[in-house]
Amino acid sequence: MNDFTYWAPTKYVFGRDAENRVGQLACEFGGKKVLLVYGGGSVVRSGLLERVKSALDLSGIEYMEMGGIHPNPTDDRVYEGIDIVRSNGIDMLIAVGGGSVIDTAKGIACGAPYEGDFWDFYCGKKIVDKALPVGVVLTIPAAGSEGSGNSVITKLDGLIKLSLRTEHWLRPRFSVMNPELTFTLPPYQTACGIVDMMAHIFERYFTNTPDCEVTDRVAEGVLKSIIAEGHKVIDNPVDYEARANVMWAATLAHNGVCGTGRVEDWSSHFIEHELSAVYDVAHGAGLAVVVPAWMRYVAERNVGRVAQFARRVMDVTAADDRTAALEGIERLRSFYHGIGMPLSFTELGIEQPDIPRLVEKLHEHKGNPIGNYVKLGPEDTDAIYRLMY
Amino acid sequence: MNDFTYWAPTKYVFGRDAENRVGQLACEFGGKKVLLVYGGGSVVRSGLLERVKSALDLSGIEYMEMGGIHPNPTDDRVYEGIDIVRSNGIDMLIAVGGGSVIDTAKGIACGAPYEGDFWDFYCGKKIVDKALPVGVVLTIPAAGSEGSGNSVITKLDGLIKLSLRTEHWLRPRFSVMNPELTFTLPPYQTACGIVDMMAHIFERYFTNTPDCEVTDRVAEGVLKSIIAEGHKVIDNPVDYEARANVMWAATLAHNGVCGTGRVEDWSSHFIEHELSAVYDVAHGAGLAVVVPAWMRYVAERNVGRVAQFARRVMDVTAADDRTAALEGIERLRSFYHGIGMPLSFTELGIEQPDIPRLVEKLHEHKGNPIGNYVKLGPEDTDAIYRLMY
Repeated sequence: MNDFTYWAPTKYVFGRDAENRVGQLACEFGGKKVLLVYGGGSVVRSGLLERVKSALDLSGIEYMEMGGIHPNPTDDRVYEGIDIVRSNGIDMLIAVGGGSVIDTAKGIACGAPYEGDFWDFYCGKKIVDKALPVGVVLTIPAAGSEGSGNSVITKLDGLIKLSLRTEHWLRPRFSVMNPELTFTLPPYQTACGIVDMMAHIFERYFTNTPDCEVTDRVAEGVLKSIIAEGHKVIDNPVDYEARANVMWAATLAHNGVCGTGRVEDWSSHFIEHELSAVYDVAHGAGLAVVVPAWMRYVAERNVGRVAQFARRVMDVTAADDRTAALEGIERLRSFYHGIGMPLSFTELGIEQPDIPRLVEKLHEHKGNPIGNYVKLGPEDTDAIYRLMY
Repeated sequence: MNDFTYWAPTKYVFGRDAENRVGQLACEFGGKKVLLVYGGGSVVRSGLLERVKSALDLSGIEYMEMGGIHPNPTDDRVYEGIDIVRSNGIDMLIAVGGGSVIDTAKGIACGAPYEGDFWDFYCGKKIVDKALPVGVVLTIPAAGSEGSGNSVITKLDGLIKLSLRTEHWLRPRFSVMNPELTFTLPPYQTACGIVDMMAHIFERYFTNTPDCEVTDRVAEGVLKSIIAEGHKVIDNPVDYEARANVMWAATLAHNGVCGTGRVEDWSSHFIEHELSAVYDVAHGAGLAVVVPAWMRYVAERNVGRVAQFARRVMDVTAADDRTAALEGIERLRSFYHGIGMPLSFTELGIEQPDIPRLVEKLHEHKGNPIGNYVKLGPEDTDAIYRLMY
C-alpha cells in the first residue's frame, strides 16, 4: 500500500426532499450571493429549479442564474460564469444538475479568484490554491463530481477535453442527493451513468500496487452493488431503493475511497475522452465500448487484476487466470448490453472512426505513454481502438 | 434505504513517517497552542512523542502536555484537561495514542468551550454545538475514534460508561496514521483491536432497514479484509502491508461509511461496556465474548442478516438460513480464537459474573429495550450474558 492523503470533506444530505435544505446548507457554508448553474430545461420543467430558489429565498440568500450548460461542457461557459461572478460579487456556486453542470461550476469556482486564465489549471500549468465554495443539487448519478475534487472541461478551440484533479479545493462543500430526482432519467442516460461510475472504480482498481486488500474489497463491493442495482433501475425507473443505491454508489465510486493507497490508471477515460470530444457520443456510452476493449488488451499483458475482478466481482470460477479474465470481460459486456449500452463503434454510431487521428490527439493531449496498469504507447492505443469495431 | 447525512471531513495523512507532518497539519487547521494528550510510557519510550514535539517546534507551535491516560478513560482526566485548556489559552487538542487518548481529547474539546459540565453531553442532556479542533496521531487501530465523531468516557462515580455521538463536531480535523507505529503492539492488544473494529461494522450491519445494498457490500468487504489481514498481523507483527490494511480498515469501520442509510444496533457495545466498566477486561476482548453470544441469541429471532453475514463474509454455503447463521457464528468464534481472543467469561478472567447486576446497570444506563435489530429487554440481555459462560 502506498502512502496517501485522503480528505473528502463534502457534507452529503441524502434522501427524499433533500433539495429543500439547500438554503440552510448554503448559509452553513457562508454563501450570501450564489450563482445557480444548471443545464437544459428538465430542471425547469420538473420544478426542481423553483424548489431550489424557494429554499434559497427562505434562507435570505440572493442568487443569479446561468442555465443551458450542455453535456461535455465547454470553456466558453466557464469564462462566462467567471465574468458573472466577478461583476456581481458572487461568493458561492450552486450546481443543479449532473457532472457537466458541476464541472462547469468547479471551473468557475477556481477561475474566478485567479488572475490568470482558468485553463492554466486544466492543462497543468498551475495548481489550484484557492476556490469559491461549490454546492451541488445532484440530478444524475454518474460522474461522481458531487463528491470529487475533479472537473472535466472541453476547450472549444481544438476540442481538447482535459481533466483537473484537486485534493480538496474543488470538492463540493455540500451535495444534496434526492434519488427521486433521478426517476425521470431516460434508460439510456441511466445506463450511461452506470457505466461511468463503474469505470471510475476500474481506473482505481487496475493497479500494480500490491497489498491494498481493504481498498480492493470496498471497490469490489461497490461494483457488485452497482451491477445488482443497475439491473433494477433499468427494469423499473421509479424503484426508489434501487435509484438510491445507484446514486450513493456513484459517489463512493469517485470520492476516492475506492482508490486509497495505490497508483491509479485512467487510460480508459483518456481513450474515451478523445471519442466524446470529437464524435457526438455520451461519455458513458463511449466507456461501454472502451473499457472492455482496454481490458481485453491489458489482460493479455498483465492478467492478475483482471482475473481478480472476474472472480470477485463477476463470480467467475475458472482456475486459469487468462480464462477467468476473458470470461469476466464477457460477463461485463453482457451486463452493459443488458442495460442497453453499445459494445462497438457501430453501435455507438461511429461508422468510420479516424483511429490514427484519435491516437495522435490522445497522446498529444495526455502524453506518451498513458496509463499505469499497462503503459500504453500509440501502437497500443491504436490496437485498443481497433478492438472496438 | 433511510435518509441520511454523511459528513466525514477528517483529513487522513497515511503512511510511513506521517507523524513528522503533524506541525504542518496543526498550522493548517489553525492551531497555535496545543495540548498534547497521551497515555502511558510507550509513546515516550518509542520516541514518538519527541518526534511529534519536534514537528510542532519546527512549525512554531506551542504545546503543553497531559500524559497518563488509561484504557477505559475516566471523567477526572477530562476535567483536568478542561482546566488546563481554559487556564492556558489552548486552541487545539492533539491526541497521540489510541481510542482512550482520543476520546479523552474529544471530551476536553467539547467541554472546554461549554460553561456547564461536559458530562451533560455524554448523558444526553445537551447537544454539542461547539468544540475545539482535535488532531490525532494514531498508535492503535481499534476504536476508530480517529475518524469518528464519537467519544466514550467512564464516570468514576458509579462506573458509568457512556458514549457521545456527534455528526461532525468531534470528528478530528486531521489524523496522522503511520502503520509502523503499530509494529510494537502486543498480539493480545492487536487482536482486541481487530475484534473492536469488526464490532463497529456489526453494529451497523445488523439492521432491519431494507435495501442498503451498497452499504452492505462495503461493510462486508471491510469485514473480509479485516479477517484476511488480521491473521497476517498476528502471524507477523512487523508486516507493514498487513498493519496498513488493518489500520485503514479500523477507520472505515467507524467513520460512518459502513452505516449510511440504515438504523444501527449498538447493543453488543452496550452489553460489553457494562463488563469493562466493572471488570478489568479490555473492550475488544469483552466484545469477542459478547458479539458471538449476541449473534446466537438474535439468530433465533431474526435470522436474515446473520445468514447473509455468514454467506457473504464467512463463505458459508448452507442453503438453510438458520444452519448458515450458526455456522457463520462458529467460524467467527474460530477466527477470534485463532487470533488469541477469549470466548467465554472464564477465558476473559471473570470467574463469577454478577449477571443480575450487569443487567440492571445495563438497562439503567442504556434504557429498556436496547438495540434495534432485535429489541432486547432485561430477560433477553440476561440470557445473552448467560450464553457467555
